[in-house]
Amino acid sequence: GHGRAHHHARRGPGTAEDQLSRTVQALKIYSTAVAPEWIDYNRHLRDGYYGLVMSLACDALMDRLGLDASYRAQTGCTLFTLEEHLHFLHEVEQTDQLDVCVRILGADRKRIHAAFDFHTARYADPVATGELMLLHVHQGESTGAAPFPPPVMAAIEALKAATAGITPPGPGSRRLELRSR
Amino acid sequence: GHGRAHHHARRGPGTAEDQLSRTVQALKIYSTAVAPEWIDYNRHLRDGYYGLVMSLACDALMDRLGLDASYRAQTGCTLFTLEEHLHFLHEVEQTDQLDVCVRILGADRKRIHAAFDFHTARYADPVATGELMLLHVHQGESTGAAPFPPPVMAAIEALKAATAGITPPGPGSRRLELRSR
Repeated sequence: GHGRAHHHARRGPGTAEDQLSRTVQALKIYSTAVAPEWIDYNRHLRDGYYGLVMSLACDALMDRLGLDASYRAQTGCTLFTLEEHLHFLHEVEQTDQLDVCVRILGADRKRIHAAFDFHTARYADPVATGELMLLHVHQGESTGAAPFPPPVMAAIEALKAATAGITPPGPGSRRLELRSR
Repeated sequence: GHGRAHHHARRGPGTAEDQLSRTVQALKIYSTAVAPEWIDYNRHLRDGYYGLVMSLACDALMDRLGLDASYRAQTGCTLFTLEEHLHFLHEVEQTDQLDVCVRILGADRKRIHAAFDFHTARYADPVATGELMLLHVHQGESTGAAPFPPPVMAAIEALKAATAGITPPGPGSRRLELRSR
């Protein structure tokens, strides 16, 4: 499967484009080309690879928050993903570049609720939106949840303050269910 | 990220194992080894690859329902994924084999709501649970939703009748939100 059947809001010159440029520049955490092997029999990006891109964007988020490789090596701590949601809104082609923006929707002493919005140059609105619920854990003999150290907590709170109030550019996570249409 | 920090229900001999064997055999739609490149810095299956495995399991579901490559070539129709949810419940290691079971939670003339439960030999309960909302579309000049042909609709209804009533072995999809703990 992969992408919505209805196309709209194709990106053109003017206000929407300017606005997107600003938004993407302000919050962009990760960019990637679409690898040829990510294209499936529907001739666009296979649904399964959006999650991989979001996972790589989450690595970039970890770097930004001070949860990078050296932190992980020194502390034995890392993030585990508890839960994930994705909306597929437009088809992505092999020639597209994916720009992923992050918003911190919530955080507590051990958890981060992050939203990731996927953009391409061809659409003013996101081609996909996703969310992750992340838990800070100490790995070892007895793996378990651990509180963020103060500098990381401060970085999370700063990014949350900068991004939590942004109007979501697409739909948020929800329970999947068939609704009459 | 990737996997829950709390481990329980490690699989042992006896009733739970027997029950799992029956369940997996009855409804298994797809199995795969864990590719070495799917393991990340946390030394287990990267979260992003669960969605790829679910996508490949969905391909197997399409084959079973008559939406296979020859159907797609003859009709120009395929499935698009509208929405996806995953719960990550246990860490998956490189030596694990992933067995994916499918349940049809709902269907209408153009849509399928499918649940996928991920099993390994080391746990009696699923290591992950996921759901997809799938739309049948005709690809071409004007891509749009299309009703399933009667034989496919019958296959969907038959699989739904066989699986919709199964007690979910893990949690279902939901809106992501931080809850106090």
